[in-house]
Amino acid sequence: MKKQIDVMGSGLIGSLVSIYLAKRGHEVNLFERRVDMRKNRISAGRSINLALSDRGFRGLAGAGLQDAIREIAIPMYGRQIHHMDGSQSFQPYGKEGQAIYSVSRGGINMRLMELADQYPNIKIHFEHRCVEVDPKSAKAKVLNEASGEVVERTPDIVIGADGAFSPVRHSLQTKTDRFDYSQTYIESGYKELVIPPDANGGFQMEKTALHIWPRKSFMLIALPNLDGSFTCTLFLPFEGEVSFSKLNTDQEITAFMQEYFADALPMMPGYLEDWHANPTSSLSIVRCNPWNYKDKVCLIGDAAHAIVPFYGQGMNCGFEDCVVLDELMESLGDDNWTEVFNNFSRLRKPNGDAVAQLALDNFIEMRDKTGDPKFLLRKQIESRISKENPSFLSLYAQVTFSPHISYAQAYQAGQRHDHYLNELASIEQVMDKWNTPEVQSIIRDLLSAE
Amino acid sequence: MKKQIDVMGSGLIGSLVSIYLAKRGHEVNLFERRVDMRKNRISAGRSINLALSDRGFRGLAGAGLQDAIREIAIPMYGRQIHHMDGSQSFQPYGKEGQAIYSVSRGGINMRLMELADQYPNIKIHFEHRCVEVDPKSAKAKVLNEASGEVVERTPDIVIGADGAFSPVRHSLQTKTDRFDYSQTYIESGYKELVIPPDANGGFQMEKTALHIWPRKSFMLIALPNLDGSFTCTLFLPFEGEVSFSKLNTDQEITAFMQEYFADALPMMPGYLEDWHANPTSSLSIVRCNPWNYKDKVCLIGDAAHAIVPFYGQGMNCGFEDCVVLDELMESLGDDNWTEVFNNFSRLRKPNGDAVAQLALDNFIEMRDKTGDPKFLLRKQIESRISKENPSFLSLYAQVTFSPHISYAQAYQAGQRHDHYLNELASIEQVMDKWNTPEVQSIIRDLLSAE
Repeated sequence: MKKQIDVMGSGLIGSLVSIYLAKRGHEVNLFERRVDMRKNRISAGRSINLALSDRGFRGLAGAGLQDAIREIAIPMYGRQIHHMDGSQSFQPYGKEGQAIYSVSRGGINMRLMELADQYPNIKIHFEHRCVEVDPKSAKAKVLNEASGEVVERTPDIVIGADGAFSPVRHSLQTKTDRFDYSQTYIESGYKELVIPPDANGGFQMEKTALHIWPRKSFMLIALPNLDGSFTCTLFLPFEGEVSFSKLNTDQEITAFMQEYFADALPMMPGYLEDWHANPTSSLSIVRCNPWNYKDKVCLIGDAAHAIVPFYGQGMNCGFEDCVVLDELMESLGDDNWTEVFNNFSRLRKPNGDAVAQLALDNFIEMRDKTGDPKFLLRKQIESRISKENPSFLSLYAQVTFSPHISYAQAYQAGQRHDHYLNELASIEQVMDKWNTPEVQSIIRDLLSAE
Repeated sequence: MKKQIDVMGSGLIGSLVSIYLAKRGHEVNLFERRVDMRKNRISAGRSINLALSDRGFRGLAGAGLQDAIREIAIPMYGRQIHHMDGSQSFQPYGKEGQAIYSVSRGGINMRLMELADQYPNIKIHFEHRCVEVDPKSAKAKVLNEASGEVVERTPDIVIGADGAFSPVRHSLQTKTDRFDYSQTYIESGYKELVIPPDANGGFQMEKTALHIWPRKSFMLIALPNLDGSFTCTLFLPFEGEVSFSKLNTDQEITAFMQEYFADALPMMPGYLEDWHANPTSSLSIVRCNPWNYKDKVCLIGDAAHAIVPFYGQGMNCGFEDCVVLDELMESLGDDNWTEVFNNFSRLRKPNGDAVAQLALDNFIEMRDKTGDPKFLLRKQIESRISKENPSFLSLYAQVTFSPHISYAQAYQAGQRHDHYLNELASIEQVMDKWNTPEVQSIIRDLLSAE
């Protein structure tokens, strides 16, 4: 039976889930608190560039959109590490040809909105902010930001795709019993800076890599854009010896950038303007349970599981949510929304929790370990095992390139790998002893545990 | 300097903290969403009886109120266990004369309000519900429930003593950056029942004990009231084999009560009426950080740290909050509210976390272990060590009878004790081997770790 469905939020996930719902013939009203970003360029400064990987492509493919999006994406084949001494090294993400794809949040969002607009049964309402939802009835109050009028909506279903600060989730938190909820901030914040194109409109650094300046307790990263620029993000603690709280004057900021990012600074002539113009933003993890209220309300994407950006999986996880929801609608039928949403919450929640933890762990890996000889040795060991045993998938490969393995399964595998890789790395001259019974027996144990 | 302070919530903690503030000369307006319970008897059914212990008395003593409250309290010297086979046993809480004190939530709250009313600089506004606070300015919106009018308040400081569902905390959650918050529900809920006085107005069971019917995954408890009745609370999972979800008809309820609480049932003639009249309430744990916003807003009591009721420490912890806050006002001065509140949050938060965990752990102890021979052996060992070493304080004694030891310290001690007590309990015939070197050496280790 065709339903009236209000989707709150026309961000990445809201746009994609609307398309999935429209394909099934439902009547979708999509409410977005901002203006149409396709008409009024929305200022940047809060939009970490995104890295699309195989889970995200799977989410897009279910709606036939993977090619449309690949057109606006730049492949990054590995991490380009910028060391303190000015030297660089390259760490491939996967096998030959495997990459993650840099996309601008605005660019992919506008493309998804255009695709949504092609469905006659999707109507996008800009400048309409969801204020609250009554979970028992799915009645919703939506504020028309332009007129100040509150629109009373009476859809059959509300989908909350309204992001980390979701008003829909907030209604579940405050209006239903036994809703578990947590928001946790990490000690670091971030600030966006820019490396513009060179005088000829070309890239100032290697285009097909994700650049990292790992500095133990903080880091700078840079992702390429189609116009030749790089979007840079500085992740730094709010408080402490080296922190945002110590960087207030232009002199302090310049001295900091020169000390830690000497090779990047000459490429970012506008760093002081960017510093002052862009906010210092916080980073939080949101967990909740359940993700639905009966057949009336369902959360998806960041609204259900906001995570830190360090595994590049926020958007990918959200796109995967969409295709999993679609598969449940397919298998359970369109008349059984309580079952669809209950199953969606039950199936996806452990994966949301797993990717939240993976993302936290990866912050430490990126900022601290990518410059660490022990870590590099472990990577070398892992890579040799992968090469000699093509069926072995590293944690990174499972998360990034293996959508058929769930985040929760990948997380478990990562815990197992840690154990064996640490054991191998603790053997002196392990690479030279590779074919000894000692080393081979540990590798056999690792492989047989898969 | 004297301040205008709005205290939200005239529950136990709001009333007591108002008295502390009034004693220091501040102008206190106390807003309470309910009617004056002294004039209009508020229905029971959601008020687990409370057990006042030494930390609570310390909190009252700082304001000179301990004797006024002791008058309306009934000492309970131990747990009276009602086994499945109808037999009973008694487990003392502490040494000769040590007790926790049963008080009715309504009774103690009314007494505290009366005491607050004696201060000319405390004004209580009933039927005034705090809607929201602006943390930056301490401006507050308070809804007059009778007239429907919203009162705009502009105090210097807002104290949120507004309980587990605190609107003040909610304003911190939604209007400040980097506020950590979680609400977690446990799988069990509760329902209040009553054992009325006997025909002569006397108690139907031993008056000076906390009665427990431990039934592994659930339990019934009963606390004495001044009028000869007992307030009973059934704690039971919401879902599962034996759960509230399976108890819908009178037949199902009666069969359940007869099977598990055969000795209690004859004393509760109105159990079916109570069952239907009283709600099945959920139990949640609330954690947040920080507890204040600068010198403008501070949370206290359940608003900062709602816990499950199984250690009988919710009110005690809240009363202790009040005296700790008072001590900080004394030591840091009345002009330094940012420091007072920052220190209050920093000092109390670890204790709030510790008591939350202790309360969760104690649910398992009460419902499951109080009937378990291994647990009873451990208790026997612990009690003999206490007797032979008067300076040794068990975890229970530290939490309940030792306000000079913080909850966090007590929790740590409990973890240490667990280790040694388990070791001792695993020795066969340990009580007979008490004076052997094996046993005595473990006891020495336990004592020297204190």
